[in-house]
Amino acid sequence: MALRAALRSKCGLSGLLSQLSSRSSHARVCVSPVLVAQQRNNSTSSKVKVEFDQSTGVAVMHMQSPPVNSLSLDFLTEFCINVEKLEMDKTCRGLIITSSQPKVFSAGLDIMEMYGKSPERCGEFWRAVQEMWLKLYSSDMVTIAAINGSSPAGGCLMSLTCDYRIMADNPRYSIGLNETQLGIVAPFWFKDTMVNTVGHRTTELALELGLLYSPSEALKIGLVDLLVPEDEVLTTATKTMTKWLAIPDHARQITKSMMRKPTIDKLTSKREADIQNFVSFITKDSIQKSLRMYLEMLKKRRG
Amino acid sequence: MALRAALRSKCGLSGLLSQLSSRSSHARVCVSPVLVAQQRNNSTSSKVKVEFDQSTGVAVMHMQSPPVNSLSLDFLTEFCINVEKLEMDKTCRGLIITSSQPKVFSAGLDIMEMYGKSPERCGEFWRAVQEMWLKLYSSDMVTIAAINGSSPAGGCLMSLTCDYRIMADNPRYSIGLNETQLGIVAPFWFKDTMVNTVGHRTTELALELGLLYSPSEALKIGLVDLLVPEDEVLTTATKTMTKWLAIPDHARQITKSMMRKPTIDKLTSKREADIQNFVSFITKDSIQKSLRMYLEMLKKRRG
Amino acid sequence: MALRAALRSKCGLSGLLSQLSSRSSHARVCVSPVLVAQQRNNSTSSKVKVEFDQSTGVAVMHMQSPPVNSLSLDFLTEFCINVEKLEMDKTCRGLIITSSQPKVFSAGLDIMEMYGKSPERCGEFWRAVQEMWLKLYSSDMVTIAAINGSSPAGGCLMSLTCDYRIMADNPRYSIGLNETQLGIVAPFWFKDTMVNTVGHRTTELALELGLLYSPSEALKIGLVDLLVPEDEVLTTATKTMTKWLAIPDHARQITKSMMRKPTIDKLTSKREADIQNFVSFITKDSIQKSLRMYLEMLKKRRG
Repeated sequence: MALRAALRSKCGLSGLLSQLSSRSSHARVCVSPVLVAQQRNNSTSSKVKVEFDQSTGVAVMHMQSPPVNSLSLDFLTEFCINVEKLEMDKTCRGLIITSSQPKVFSAGLDIMEMYGKSPERCGEFWRAVQEMWLKLYSSDMVTIAAINGSSPAGGCLMSLTCDYRIMADNPRYSIGLNETQLGIVAPFWFKDTMVNTVGHRTTELALELGLLYSPSEALKIGLVDLLVPEDEVLTTATKTMTKWLAIPDHARQITKSMMRKPTIDKLTSKREADIQNFVSFITKDSIQKSLRMYLEMLKKRRG
Repeated sequence: MALRAALRSKCGLSGLLSQLSSRSSHARVCVSPVLVAQQRNNSTSSKVKVEFDQSTGVAVMHMQSPPVNSLSLDFLTEFCINVEKLEMDKTCRGLIITSSQPKVFSAGLDIMEMYGKSPERCGEFWRAVQEMWLKLYSSDMVTIAAINGSSPAGGCLMSLTCDYRIMADNPRYSIGLNETQLGIVAPFWFKDTMVNTVGHRTTELALELGLLYSPSEALKIGLVDLLVPEDEVLTTATKTMTKWLAIPDHARQITKSMMRKPTIDKLTSKREADIQNFVSFITKDSIQKSLRMYLEMLKKRRG
Repeated sequence: MALRAALRSKCGLSGLLSQLSSRSSHARVCVSPVLVAQQRNNSTSSKVKVEFDQSTGVAVMHMQSPPVNSLSLDFLTEFCINVEKLEMDKTCRGLIITSSQPKVFSAGLDIMEMYGKSPERCGEFWRAVQEMWLKLYSSDMVTIAAINGSSPAGGCLMSLTCDYRIMADNPRYSIGLNETQLGIVAPFWFKDTMVNTVGHRTTELALELGLLYSPSEALKIGLVDLLVPEDEVLTTATKTMTKWLAIPDHARQITKSMMRKPTIDKLTSKREADIQNFVSFITKDSIQKSLRMYLEMLKKRRG
């Protein structure tokens, strides 16, 4: 049942994607370039805003889902649709991902999607998380994370899928896969992505302890590539993108695929099992109880 | 023949383990907690002393086999029995391993077990080395090595199986897998454990040259995680353990298994072949000659 | 057809190798050691000069193919013959590779072998590149790269196959796998060798951007092991070799093989497919056009 629902979700997503992309390709064919830019590239939706500069071939995706860009099913669906649109637009060569919310890049997976939900819904949600990772980690575009705020758990994962990570040098921010601190477990493909970035031992330590790193610590272990003052994150991302786009696309894309394909193939071949594994874990009474306690703790903090 | 003897050894060990554990679980059920703590947790045997603090859930295992905690068959058997007991005691969540001998954590595999011994005996010995590694590397407990002295070869391996390594900041001490210096070879699972800790290239260099590192060098390459003054090794290990035990056990254990299972499965599936390989290598005339020369060199040094 | 030609080349190489080695082994048997040293060890050919010191067991291979030791088919054939000769000479335990050309170690694969050539010829060339890598990466000798000049692309690969890399501390020199900058792609075994040396993430970044590193940057990421003043590169290599040769050969060789065999087996099992892949890629119109533009750019620079 969970699988069927998940597949429905998949179909729904694909259907929506194809509608949107056919519209966008239609626009590209029939309308003057300037109008196209206005009409389709600066699309504003509730959770994600995309600015595409056709003169440079670079799109900036602003995550703008208050208060902390939580990765809900709705957010992920919209996010993936936008990435897919850009991916299919051959004039778009680079994607910068950043946040419009203050102090946070993304707070990660939306706990409300895991608490008190049916197995079917949990399965749909997890498939969307997988989809986000698959799309970003295998993107033919140059992807740069402009991390202008804290980036725990799923927010860190999103950053890790990019080709380059630039973080605001603000010691109040932190980044890391801190799932174990909440009593849950980062799945193997989160782990693989982190191992590919910072190596086996640092990942073991980080995941067992659910460590969150300050920007300077993150730089030291290689979790991010560059720190800059907070108000220079986006401009630095733009300059860095120019350097990356000087490399012939074709050679860079084949190289990127060579580096990442084994990790991507692993999830692709175990996707359904991974969903079932997540659903059976997250719907356990003990895990639901942990999440409830965590949510109550959050509520008290805010209250 | 070697295999049969080794299997006998395995059975013997299992039998002893089950006797001991049935005794301990009996004690736990029938006697008051304080008495239990006195009766079974501070067991003193000739080679290993275990102190278990039920209030914290942390056991400290003191290796006390003069002069240098060599990993003989007897030592390993007793060591594994004690680890197994703690593993099966669900109130024990953390294990600190340290040495009661001055200046040395463990000198590693006992060369006398490899020199002039029958193939059967060599096979028994090797199975016990494997068992030590398998038990520690897959332990559900948080394991911390409190390395208060030199830790070459098998002593280094034992440290590498732990979740965290704290070493005395004494430049006279050293740590490393120095097997090649003696003309012998660290097997693939020693190698895998080191690669998982310090990466491929550092391992290649370390194993080809049989390098021993000073504490500060070991920290630099990631072979240990922390250096503290010699008299603070154990207290720091205890404090560090508290931090680790703040993480929900279940999530940490699944994460640890995810990181280590492929490496463990590799030895498990090749265990008999690895024993045969060791036995046929170590019983070679040329290797026996190397060991004799090394032993004579040691004798002269002491004499 | 490409394969057949490549196989012919292989046969030719083997034939030549066996002629040369039978000559050398004949010399070793029949002539006095001093004469042997003069006769066969200081062989001078057009592209490679080998000096073998029988008193130390160390050979120094000077690459002397003007202007920049490009790895042409002729160069690679001669290079491999010489490595093979030394490999089969059990008195030769160590090999130092260095350059006789000013300012350059090796400029890497000869672009003229890839531009305007028949598929058959391209296949022959690629097999020779594979052969060079296979011979060096699996060598039983201790191999040290004395990198006394720039070492891009194939020159970097050659360095990476060695057990140790010593580079001239001259900021004008650079080293790296910069293939993508030219619009071509480092194949999986170049990538594997680099991952084994500097890890996954550094390799991803280096290969996607085609980065060339200054000596100090190369040291920092672990692409080279030691920097020394330019006029001390070879003497330091010789001193370093002495340290390596203090390790028992047999234990070191088994250890080296354990570290490298999976990577070597991967190419060995995919060798023909890798050749076909290279040939079909390099003979594409778009790639040929890229190479022509690059060659014209080089011509203008020199002109």
